[in-house]
Amino acid sequence: MKTKNWLFSDYSCLSMAEGLLSAKVENTHVVYDMFFREIPNNGGFAVMAGLSVLIEELKKLKFTDDILTSLGQDGFSEKLIDYLRNFKFSCDIYAVPEGTPVFPNEPIVKVCGPVIQVQLIETLILNIINHQTLIATKANRVVRAAQGKSVIEMGARRSQGFDSAMYGARAAYIGGVSATTLYNASKEFNIPSVAPMSHSWVQLFDDELEAFKLYLEEHGEDGMLLVDTYDTLESGVKNAVEAFNSVLVPKGLRPAGIIIDSGDMTYLSKRARRILDEAGFPDCDIYASNSLDEVLIKDMINQGAKIDGFIVGEKLITSASSPVLDGVYKLCETEKNGERIPAIMVSNNVNKITTPCSKRVWRLFDMESGKAIADVLTLSDESIDAEKTYSLFDPDFTWKRKTVDNFVARELLVTIFKDGECVYNIPSLEDIRAYCNEQVSTLWDEVTRFENPHKYYVDFSGKLWGVKQRLIEKNSKF
Amino acid sequence: MKTKNWLFSDYSCLSMAEGLLSAKVENTHVVYDMFFREIPNNGGFAVMAGLSVLIEELKKLKFTDDILTSLGQDGFSEKLIDYLRNFKFSCDIYAVPEGTPVFPNEPIVKVCGPVIQVQLIETLILNIINHQTLIATKANRVVRAAQGKSVIEMGARRSQGFDSAMYGARAAYIGGVSATTLYNASKEFNIPSVAPMSHSWVQLFDDELEAFKLYLEEHGEDGMLLVDTYDTLESGVKNAVEAFNSVLVPKGLRPAGIIIDSGDMTYLSKRARRILDEAGFPDCDIYASNSLDEVLIKDMINQGAKIDGFIVGEKLITSASSPVLDGVYKLCETEKNGERIPAIMVSNNVNKITTPCSKRVWRLFDMESGKAIADVLTLSDESIDAEKTYSLFDPDFTWKRKTVDNFVARELLVTIFKDGECVYNIPSLEDIRAYCNEQVSTLWDEVTRFENPHKYYVDFSGKLWGVKQRLIEKNSKF
Repeated sequence: MKTKNWLFSDYSCLSMAEGLLSAKVENTHVVYDMFFREIPNNGGFAVMAGLSVLIEELKKLKFTDDILTSLGQDGFSEKLIDYLRNFKFSCDIYAVPEGTPVFPNEPIVKVCGPVIQVQLIETLILNIINHQTLIATKANRVVRAAQGKSVIEMGARRSQGFDSAMYGARAAYIGGVSATTLYNASKEFNIPSVAPMSHSWVQLFDDELEAFKLYLEEHGEDGMLLVDTYDTLESGVKNAVEAFNSVLVPKGLRPAGIIIDSGDMTYLSKRARRILDEAGFPDCDIYASNSLDEVLIKDMINQGAKIDGFIVGEKLITSASSPVLDGVYKLCETEKNGERIPAIMVSNNVNKITTPCSKRVWRLFDMESGKAIADVLTLSDESIDAEKTYSLFDPDFTWKRKTVDNFVARELLVTIFKDGECVYNIPSLEDIRAYCNEQVSTLWDEVTRFENPHKYYVDFSGKLWGVKQRLIEKNSKF
Repeated sequence: MKTKNWLFSDYSCLSMAEGLLSAKVENTHVVYDMFFREIPNNGGFAVMAGLSVLIEELKKLKFTDDILTSLGQDGFSEKLIDYLRNFKFSCDIYAVPEGTPVFPNEPIVKVCGPVIQVQLIETLILNIINHQTLIATKANRVVRAAQGKSVIEMGARRSQGFDSAMYGARAAYIGGVSATTLYNASKEFNIPSVAPMSHSWVQLFDDELEAFKLYLEEHGEDGMLLVDTYDTLESGVKNAVEAFNSVLVPKGLRPAGIIIDSGDMTYLSKRARRILDEAGFPDCDIYASNSLDEVLIKDMINQGAKIDGFIVGEKLITSASSPVLDGVYKLCETEKNGERIPAIMVSNNVNKITTPCSKRVWRLFDMESGKAIADVLTLSDESIDAEKTYSLFDPDFTWKRKTVDNFVARELLVTIFKDGECVYNIPSLEDIRAYCNEQVSTLWDEVTRFENPHKYYVDFSGKLWGVKQRLIEKNSKF
């Protein structure tokens, strides 16, 4: 809530821009890849999210006089300030559409253009995509654990700041939740919203029954009753039944549901179900809340809990079990005398070695089953001919080969910005959510399972592998 | 970045406001406490943060025509819209000042006023205080682990949204970090900022040495060199020495430092230290980065790493090891016919039972050592007389008694808003940071240690305990 029309940026991006101008290399044409190295929660895949928000931020990127004055006061050079005064975004950006399952070490955003611009937007890109992809991924886990029962996102009270809640609600919706409790997010992104009852409503009245009746008079068939303020079975569920009978039934209305927020919810839900059924309310849904996540939900379902929907709070909105996506933004191609030069970083940590070159990313789908077989990274001037068989090549275990045929190859990176102009039509959030669901279903069960999922193949073309090998040999001194 | 002048609120707060108006109880005078139940990371204390941000948000709270129109479109009642049109904040708010060590189950924010207002701001209060207290607490752990060496916060690339990075940087500064790398946060909150070099700077030039020289020509004594792009010892540190000698030494300048971002940093730092010392740069600091947290930092120091400062990223800014503070906001007193009625929630989970009544919070300090002995919750009309001995009473283990004398009692909750007007002078961020450091030093080592810290006493006055007992007996059916 503290923001200006101001580039969100680490100091080092500005300071590097200054250095590039001094060294007179600011217009060197470069390619940077954003990719991540590890899937949160040791899962089998992540769900791309945040692109629409990134596009919006990039569209409004400019440096007002206020900003320039402020940079001057901070001792930034006139050269930088002049450059920013006349700043015109001119990069090409390619990205994987939101809702797509994505995997480690493949570019999910690729930015090409003058190095000064490409690196100025580093913090912005990483912040948005890392956060929102993380939450979409977690939400998708929770939704899959719920096996078709509805999941309501209710994280705003414990999320990490306002827009963690706002953008988190959006990402969670992409991942498959049914609704959010955050009114602001529901307005901003047009997400269905619900309003669970609070304990204080119950406490405010002389007794629970009175509180329930008043609530139902107000909310009718939308009013879900929170039944655990005093004692779930002895007081809450019984009073709920009485309130349904006295307020709803005479009007011919049916109850929306009850919410259990504490205690042994598997046990309580079974007992509550029986009470509700016997009282003539088999259609009254039972919702559970209380620090739920995919592990607890799976366990409750396995134990036969009679729960129709899950209200999921802080564990989802912070991806508490794995609260970071480790995306990085790395130079993979630079330029010298007009010639493109592949770039690499050869670290003492083998998993930090980057993959050079401007690349394309292909996903191969089996023609018969429709399932995703593997992703393949190629040089940008290569393409994959689905008419032929294709030989997959594992960049880590180079003795592994697999030949595929009868497949369809789809490019994952689509053009988002061309010469600084957005050329991408952002799909509606509903469409992104449906696309996510559909794309996750192209993954084999072995990839989507929670425990020890199969490692999906992200392979290299022979040419790309050749370049990487050559550069490692040239640069490393292992 | 997506925000309007709009109350950040769960749907249920608005929907409850509507219900209160219908039930004609909107002006019932209530008291709500915000408190948390568990200390993140199983630590011995948390560090209060976020209050200044909360104050700012509350000061600008109003409902513009835009908002009212939008609420109308969403089917909210004319009654609610009228109420909000004429909204004038009139609550009293008491809170623990930022930087104070705080403990479970004691009110850290207390709001008194008409129930419709008190509950409208629930989401706002919880979001801000939960997030920022979490990060200040984590930062303070990291800073204590670093034992006086500097800690630089660099989390913006992987934080959970923009203001998670912004407010997180502020909270981290309260917790004791020395600087942030986020330019926006440094501007907004006047926090020292640094700009570590990036790998891509090195990759952009023909060789590492050239990159280093250009960087030092630009940044002089401020330029820290990142030495792990190719090979830390064989290439990075040697080139750094050569660049220092060729660029800085002739100008009479001294090097700022080098940064190691990968590999075995304890080993590499010792080797790098020797190379730098032998080359005549014993004053060149060595910084370490790479997914650090308090556990790794402590271990590196224990192993004799030659590291002068730590650059700490995602693990701090998300409090990754414990990414949620579980603060809640609960009714503790209501009103009937002008009389104040203590309110309780008696849950099936014993730890969810709330403490009734409008309360005061006292911290008793030992007069001799200056150390904090215990916190005591009393009724709001009680006070603690330091002239006498005081008998502490454990609300969980009621057979435990401890008599203290020779103490000073300080009230922790200070008045922030009176009749809707802010009456609190927000201290400068520097002062809050210094106060935090000073207050943490009033805690016994047994409370501040990382592993199995001593549980600090948060006790009740006899009167308060009496009321709680009575209400539990009245309401529970265990």
